[in-house]
Amino acid sequence: MTVPSFEGKTTQKAAVCHGAVDLRIEDKPIRAPAEGEAQVAMGVTGLCGSDLHYYSHGANGTFKIQAPMVLGHESCGIITALPATLPAGCTLQVGDRVALEVGINCKNCKYCKEGRYNLCKNMRFASSAKTFPHLDGTLCEVMTHPLDLLHKLPPALDLPLAALAEPLSVVLHAYRRAHLQPAARVLVLGTGAVGLLACALAKASGATTVIAVDIEQGKLDFAAKMGWVDGTYCLPRGPRVSGAEALEAAKTNWEALQKDAVVTAVEGLEEGFDAVFECTGVESCMQMAAFAAAPGSKVLYVGMGTPVLALPVGAAMLREVDLIGVFRYCNTYPDALALLASGKLGDVGKMVTQRYPLDRAVEAFEDVKRGKDKDGNTVIKVMVGNLDLK
Amino acid sequence: MTVPSFEGKTTQKAAVCHGAVDLRIEDKPIRAPAEGEAQVAMGVTGLCGSDLHYYSHGANGTFKIQAPMVLGHESCGIITALPATLPAGCTLQVGDRVALEVGINCKNCKYCKEGRYNLCKNMRFASSAKTFPHLDGTLCEVMTHPLDLLHKLPPALDLPLAALAEPLSVVLHAYRRAHLQPAARVLVLGTGAVGLLACALAKASGATTVIAVDIEQGKLDFAAKMGWVDGTYCLPRGPRVSGAEALEAAKTNWEALQKDAVVTAVEGLEEGFDAVFECTGVESCMQMAAFAAAPGSKVLYVGMGTPVLALPVGAAMLREVDLIGVFRYCNTYPDALALLASGKLGDVGKMVTQRYPLDRAVEAFEDVKRGKDKDGNTVIKVMVGNLDLK
Amino acid sequence: MTVPSFEGKTTQKAAVCHGAVDLRIEDKPIRAPAEGEAQVAMGVTGLCGSDLHYYSHGANGTFKIQAPMVLGHESCGIITALPATLPAGCTLQVGDRVALEVGINCKNCKYCKEGRYNLCKNMRFASSAKTFPHLDGTLCEVMTHPLDLLHKLPPALDLPLAALAEPLSVVLHAYRRAHLQPAARVLVLGTGAVGLLACALAKASGATTVIAVDIEQGKLDFAAKMGWVDGTYCLPRGPRVSGAEALEAAKTNWEALQKDAVVTAVEGLEEGFDAVFECTGVESCMQMAAFAAAPGSKVLYVGMGTPVLALPVGAAMLREVDLIGVFRYCNTYPDALALLASGKLGDVGKMVTQRYPLDRAVEAFEDVKRGKDKDGNTVIKVMVGNLDLK
Amino acid sequence: MTVPSFEGKTTQKAAVCHGAVDLRIEDKPIRAPAEGEAQVAMGVTGLCGSDLHYYSHGANGTFKIQAPMVLGHESCGIITALPATLPAGCTLQVGDRVALEVGINCKNCKYCKEGRYNLCKNMRFASSAKTFPHLDGTLCEVMTHPLDLLHKLPPALDLPLAALAEPLSVVLHAYRRAHLQPAARVLVLGTGAVGLLACALAKASGATTVIAVDIEQGKLDFAAKMGWVDGTYCLPRGPRVSGAEALEAAKTNWEALQKDAVVTAVEGLEEGFDAVFECTGVESCMQMAAFAAAPGSKVLYVGMGTPVLALPVGAAMLREVDLIGVFRYCNTYPDALALLASGKLGDVGKMVTQRYPLDRAVEAFEDVKRGKDKDGNTVIKVMVGNLDLK
Repeated sequence: MTVPSFEGKTTQKAAVCHGAVDLRIEDKPIRAPAEGEAQVAMGVTGLCGSDLHYYSHGANGTFKIQAPMVLGHESCGIITALPATLPAGCTLQVGDRVALEVGINCKNCKYCKEGRYNLCKNMRFASSAKTFPHLDGTLCEVMTHPLDLLHKLPPALDLPLAALAEPLSVVLHAYRRAHLQPAARVLVLGTGAVGLLACALAKASGATTVIAVDIEQGKLDFAAKMGWVDGTYCLPRGPRVSGAEALEAAKTNWEALQKDAVVTAVEGLEEGFDAVFECTGVESCMQMAAFAAAPGSKVLYVGMGTPVLALPVGAAMLREVDLIGVFRYCNTYPDALALLASGKLGDVGKMVTQRYPLDRAVEAFEDVKRGKDKDGNTVIKVMVGNLDLK
Repeated sequence: MTVPSFEGKTTQKAAVCHGAVDLRIEDKPIRAPAEGEAQVAMGVTGLCGSDLHYYSHGANGTFKIQAPMVLGHESCGIITALPATLPAGCTLQVGDRVALEVGINCKNCKYCKEGRYNLCKNMRFASSAKTFPHLDGTLCEVMTHPLDLLHKLPPALDLPLAALAEPLSVVLHAYRRAHLQPAARVLVLGTGAVGLLACALAKASGATTVIAVDIEQGKLDFAAKMGWVDGTYCLPRGPRVSGAEALEAAKTNWEALQKDAVVTAVEGLEEGFDAVFECTGVESCMQMAAFAAAPGSKVLYVGMGTPVLALPVGAAMLREVDLIGVFRYCNTYPDALALLASGKLGDVGKMVTQRYPLDRAVEAFEDVKRGKDKDGNTVIKVMVGNLDLK
Repeated sequence: MTVPSFEGKTTQKAAVCHGAVDLRIEDKPIRAPAEGEAQVAMGVTGLCGSDLHYYSHGANGTFKIQAPMVLGHESCGIITALPATLPAGCTLQVGDRVALEVGINCKNCKYCKEGRYNLCKNMRFASSAKTFPHLDGTLCEVMTHPLDLLHKLPPALDLPLAALAEPLSVVLHAYRRAHLQPAARVLVLGTGAVGLLACALAKASGATTVIAVDIEQGKLDFAAKMGWVDGTYCLPRGPRVSGAEALEAAKTNWEALQKDAVVTAVEGLEEGFDAVFECTGVESCMQMAAFAAAPGSKVLYVGMGTPVLALPVGAAMLREVDLIGVFRYCNTYPDALALLASGKLGDVGKMVTQRYPLDRAVEAFEDVKRGKDKDGNTVIKVMVGNLDLK
Repeated sequence: MTVPSFEGKTTQKAAVCHGAVDLRIEDKPIRAPAEGEAQVAMGVTGLCGSDLHYYSHGANGTFKIQAPMVLGHESCGIITALPATLPAGCTLQVGDRVALEVGINCKNCKYCKEGRYNLCKNMRFASSAKTFPHLDGTLCEVMTHPLDLLHKLPPALDLPLAALAEPLSVVLHAYRRAHLQPAARVLVLGTGAVGLLACALAKASGATTVIAVDIEQGKLDFAAKMGWVDGTYCLPRGPRVSGAEALEAAKTNWEALQKDAVVTAVEGLEEGFDAVFECTGVESCMQMAAFAAAPGSKVLYVGMGTPVLALPVGAAMLREVDLIGVFRYCNTYPDALALLASGKLGDVGKMVTQRYPLDRAVEAFEDVKRGKDKDGNTVIKVMVGNLDLK
């Protein structure tokens, strides 16, 4: 791949969100790299749930866009320019293919120093409206970015696969927090992109039983076809309920799963799993997770769609089921890239179901919104970007 | 102390619960120790919240008495008889003063083998109606008990203090699960016996800041007088609320504490504590705990009065506050006894506010129920039993 | 498979070690199962390094045989008889195929209770001369054994594969003590049976780089052919040295490996591995492990051939490399069996290179001693036993 | 305390090491704070073993001074100047009293990001000759230093006490790596300043038994008088031996301690301690530590005087005693300061046995070298510096 050049150019194109369903391809200035930064030609960016929220509502939960903001944060590219001197230990070069870790942490607070920089008190995260002025995202042609947040790709890894390092980072961070050992028995609730990667990671990391649950048989079939699960279970689709009603559904769903062959086939599994990765954020699933975890095990709340929950703390706490929160990730990129390059996750590239050039970003978002592209193909992960579009 | 003898006797007195407010001092048979058991003359038994539930309602939560059951489980005594041969490694002798760990675990299930025997699937716990036939408790004159669940007292420790090893075990187990390091900043919600011991243990274990919260100033004053806390905070007493209303109270209470001098005096403490020990079981406190825990910290749910809770999981999980359940204890007795004997917990014996002989057990329970004895003295821990009654 | 019966029989054959190179097939009494025990028809037993020591020298290190002792401890079989009543939670039945965990722990000492029963102070381990009277091993036709130390085989697992659960337990225990996370980079020193299983387990448990080192290219080739390693490195065979000389060799060997393509191909690997599994017990390898571990990582000493070692503690400690000891295993069998049954370890049955009936046990030991069988085939794991000999 | 001012001044005095026993008080330039830095008037600096090595030999182990270097790194002072703008989250002000953490890490390498910045690959540590150009130490009047490595003192803490935050950091880091729980039984080998602080920290952090070992009865008596130990044991002073001879001494010493009343008085302690903090660096003590650690426990190698050691790995590893290295510290300063201010360590200021102004630094070093001052008083910690000299 030849290295793009932005020499002499002062503007580029970017996909800028101006509010609900108002995404525009606009000119944005190009900035030369300051000390400690690199200029990176953007390759591809995967679209994620939070991008979709901004696209659809001009807001993600309580974070509302206060000024036009470039979307996108699952991305990789190629270094096009570097400052004259690099800090000690930095070996990056123009032409290096890199994944961008887009949360810029302060390095000075207690959390940064302790290595939990995802909890940094001064974090600015590209394409998130939590801080203002907003930090622009990666749906553009070129950006400057801190050197230490660029992660060189292993030679074997192509760009679209590398963009999966971001959702895989979420999953890897959760997996680390679960402190699982070989032969774990894992339940994954939800088989969106994150849930699928949770299945794939568990399978690659020594779990002897991985069971996935969703309300769409098609997604479960995909997980099975990829070899990432030992069994699947399709929950009946019901109306979205909350509180006591959701809790009742949660109990019923767990009891049904408990008696299903995917569970009874494994000695002792009806008492629960060693870890439950909750990747839906749906109240009844978040509750079900507490029931489905075995005594002494852990629930990892990866999806966070229900901020206040009628939680069966008795059922969890009296069985010493720990409820573990997961917020983004830290120190995951090198390992996520190594995992993607290793082939251990199987044919993970199949998760990239659609690709669009940057100027067709709106089409990409519409696909994500519908869950299908115009040809009726299911959307798992849509990528947007110009490089590596062979 | 001379060793009591039950030779030639076939019956003894015991405090038997027949149902709600129906505790009778009755004759019970004496059983000779089988292989692997000792006969123990009961010294003193501390009364605990679950005893009070059985006394008052004939039930503890969903566990209802199905046949008359001896109450009591915080206890110690003196070995009066042993079988002819002892297992390898056992050095117990007649006359040894011992604390009784009253949960008899199976030793064969996964949890027993892994050292988390509090989660034993076949556990029988004395004075709990969870299993049937019920296992009688310790409010009696003499009982037989497995050798490996008898813990020899350090020489310096007297019997009533040793009976505190049980509630201290609960606290120690929670403390271990918190994995705290020196210089921790700890919040304790609730200053009943368990909450007080949580304060004392934290103070003795390297915490630089221990703050206690309760709705009774008197209890907080006691904690302060004992030197177990660096500050106290008295919550306004309100009506018992639940769900969204409780959550509102929880937020308000945390915000008020956050701005109080006990918190603002300590650099950075307004962001939350390294661990919150929730010892009330009250919904709004269980919710407040999630707010009061700092990012990346832990809530230990020690009290479990509200089985389903409107929990602010968003507030907890997005800040990676782990919610940790605590069910009884395992492997705590030797350490709890060593702590009590060490003097590190200060004048912990002051927690024993009333003492009664066994035949006045009903008076003891009435004191606990009222929270005051007949002379108007506050009840912290009432002990019942004949030995060591100087 | 039909269940064998020993009804009416009072004696059986067993392979009894009488001293150095004096193994006899002799009659031994059959014992009916007492309470808490089962009678098990022995299927196969894998021969291990310690068995070979007893066979060759009548002793294993400082543990000398004081009376004739049956050898063997990597074994599985079929339950032939059970007592009338089984303890709570036990679901074993006559005809169940089981793996035998042969270390009988006391269940009462601190280590048993805490779940680290491999450190049990009263442990009796079958076929080990450490305790006297010795506990006979599994190279026999039938034995009685505690119920809780019998682990039912998953349906898919055949007996010879199940016997590998013992060496895999050693490896699994070490792996757990390493607390590795996905994407670990692992070095395994030594590719005997234990080292090979360490490679296989690492590969199956999320390691992205597994490199094996040995002095025999053939063994390394086997590891590579099995798909258990990403690279191998053959050390030059030299005279066995010790002390400063060994240390010099260790340094030289590490520096050579550091510059080898298997290491330089992986970004940053020349600084060392996330974990080094030392499976040789050879002094210069034990030293090399300390150099080859990255700052902040761990060395797992699985092989223990050199009790006093000129250890470069400076090189280890100033880089915070933890040196972790591994003694047998605890709580591993169910997981080891699940791993073997899962197929995650690949075609691990290929490790069983020779099979003999019990009455040819001497031939089996001679094969192990030579490292080759009579036909010149390399020995990896030799199995002895009558059942499942199709 | 009034805030000193260096406005208008261009030079200051500093204690510069030119080689073996060649320490000169010289003029050094004053540097204005750049972005991210503060100017700090130095208060006091405690002298440490590595300072003494440079003073005496012009080198510390293999690190030789290549150019004149200012010594000192255990220090605190007062902020005298700040840059115009401070980074997000920084609340430091001119006049703030601060402790200086003198290891300047790169913040970009894997170790910095993971929170183990003591292992930083690009670390420059003031007063260490490991890197060149050397980074000058704190034995001066004023220095500029990164803002995030300045730790504001709690109000209650005076400057000389605050300088102890550095050796206490070493101890705290080791203590954290031991992962001890309340009621630990701790052995400390060596009662120099670091060993004493290890005793004090263990005592304050829930250890029920702390035993100190040294060859000087006077030091042990000091530890006892301070209330930091439950017992002491004076080893016989012998010739410095190494290898097998040292190992023999180690065994003999442990066996003698094992039978001593300080050990036998505590149930089960003869089997070893939960953690051994080795603070001497002497070979026979480093070996003894491996024997004195209980099965399943840890040795923390805090002193590192013997880079290659005849280590009884068999005795350690077969009992699963982990050997844990400790290199300086990370993330300790706020907690170390909080501990010093809390009073939990008792009258720790008594450890400061001598105080000198900067221009008498040579006298201070001579005291440290002799271990006594001119009046014959024992040296524990000598402080040098002008501020707070009341």
